Amino acid sequence: MNTALDLATIRAAHERIRPHIHRTPVLTSARLDSASAASLFFKCENFQKVGAFKARGATNAVFMLDDATAKRGVATHSSGNHAAALSRAAKLRKIPAHIVMPSNTLKVKIRAVEEYGGRIVFCEPTQTAREQTCAEVIAKTGATLIHPFENENVMAGQGTVAVELLEHVDVDLVLCPVGGGGLLCGTAVAAKTLRPKIKVVAVEPANADDAARSFRAGQLMRVDKPNTIADGLRTNVGVPNFAIIQRYVDDIVTVSEESIVAAMREIWQTMKIIVEPSAAVPYAAILERKIDIGGRRVGLILTGGNVDLDALPWMVNK
Amino acid sequence: MNTALDLATIRAAHERIRPHIHRTPVLTSARLDSASAASLFFKCENFQKVGAFKARGATNAVFMLDDATAKRGVATHSSGNHAAALSRAAKLRKIPAHIVMPSNTLKVKIRAVEEYGGRIVFCEPTQTAREQTCAEVIAKTGATLIHPFENENVMAGQGTVAVELLEHVDVDLVLCPVGGGGLLCGTAVAAKTLRPKIKVVAVEPANADDAARSFRAGQLMRVDKPNTIADGLRTNVGVPNFAIIQRYVDDIVTVSEESIVAAMREIWQTMKIIVEPSAAVPYAAILERKIDIGGRRVGLILTGGNVDLDALPWMVNK
Repeated sequence: MNTALDLATIRAAHERIRPHIHRTPVLTSARLDSASAASLFFKCENFQKVGAFKARGATNAVFMLDDATAKRGVATHSSGNHAAALSRAAKLRKIPAHIVMPSNTLKVKIRAVEEYGGRIVFCEPTQTAREQTCAEVIAKTGATLIHPFENENVMAGQGTVAVELLEHVDVDLVLCPVGGGGLLCGTAVAAKTLRPKIKVVAVEPANADDAARSFRAGQLMRVDKPNTIADGLRTNVGVPNFAIIQRYVDDIVTVSEESIVAAMREIWQTMKIIVEPSAAVPYAAILERKIDIGGRRVGLILTGGNVDLDALPWMVNK
Repeated sequence: MNTALDLATIRAAHERIRPHIHRTPVLTSARLDSASAASLFFKCENFQKVGAFKARGATNAVFMLDDATAKRGVATHSSGNHAAALSRAAKLRKIPAHIVMPSNTLKVKIRAVEEYGGRIVFCEPTQTAREQTCAEVIAKTGATLIHPFENENVMAGQGTVAVELLEHVDVDLVLCPVGGGGLLCGTAVAAKTLRPKIKVVAVEPANADDAARSFRAGQLMRVDKPNTIADGLRTNVGVPNFAIIQRYVDDIVTVSEESIVAAMREIWQTMKIIVEPSAAVPYAAILERKIDIGGRRVGLILTGGNVDLDALPWMVNK
């Protein structure tokens, strides 16, 4: 069912998902421009359905299934935004979504899946248990696995963020967070095809720097116990994702936990919008001056806005 | 220097301040529409310069001064958004702004004024001390008092919010918070003149219900110690404001502190935008079902987004 990831599949994904997603705004801030001596364009996927760009990829993957396959449902193992996004996409198509979640998943994430009618199966909080439980669910139901980032239909859906960004504004550089690499692959392929001279730089927490280390080494390296507040970026880069990243991405830089919290808070305080820690990671790279952006036009993808308002990082650290 | 408040003065204010303010977006939420069985249009003045609609009125008042008067500076007594807005407007016109602030003002509000170059004079935290200190500053400097809401040029500037809202979308009903009444007067005059059949309903914390009680009694009533989290709405309605309110406003309803916090949190959680407690007051009236909005198109003015991120109401209450 997968297709090669290119601009055509990303454009087709855009047509397919358009009725079901928001075209999110691109915001600017005179204050942040002046602080960074550049022109920053924030693509606000925190305003997306389910509060994250994940709505795009999941919707594309679900609507690409043929009727007979779709009828048996979809499944994934995820504790994050992909779980809510897949539940919502399945609900739109009126098919079941089976969501395998570690037993220690935050209540707010469980509630999001429940609201969209996802059927939750809890498991032990290990990667092995997640994969095994998911395999069992699939064996029992005949559901199709929709992997959160290794699936090219998912990547094509995520690539529509960059298409919209570049339709709205011309930029020299795109900064994109990297976890599993779904968004990064879609972004890099779309941006580099639409504007061959554009630079695409990924940003990653130093405490979950598998992508940066893999990029330097030229081969996949794993981080076993990523300890970062950016919960959306704890995953290791996928195998198909890494091949695309090597081909299309210009650089990968890392940022500290302190910078991520400072960036998140600065965006809240100045822009009056709610972004989750993972979404603040590109701006953290600007705060750390990890990338030369002086005088340039920079697109930053604010990936999501799902936070636990009872446990904000600057409170927890006190 | 004051002029009668009408649509012409509001339109003139709009032309005057347009280069200095944002045309803020109007946001919608499928989830909040469905929860309230109505169509809600949120006019996002939390995204305005200085983080609140106050930028409009202060800018209009400052730019209406003749050069000789302007040169001597402006002054106000305010601990809130008007202080930052007046400092910014004065800076734009390159004249001094003297800001009298109670000694117990939140640091975040002090910093905002300092950032825009306002000259702060601290005083005891009583209304008498504020007015007296402000009179002294004016006697010494020759500065012009720019009252936060009793000044008709300020009201005309605030009225531009409603003009923009109604240029963007047609609504049956506008919900507007009321503190001193500057925004409410501008809103009511603009909305009723542009759309004579529109309803304008003000919303006020029950713990600071001077406007609602005055409206019922037909004469100004005061609340001496308003104890509400909605810090922007602690002021009593001004004398000139009340006359306009009596003529143009359809109703004033009150909401509980619990509803204000719930409304604020719901807007943060669902819309992913940061609004201050005062801005959540109109939506609190919808949560409390104080107003019949079933099937109607409702404009809500989200007045500002300046909050202390270290002391969110749902944290303090724990």
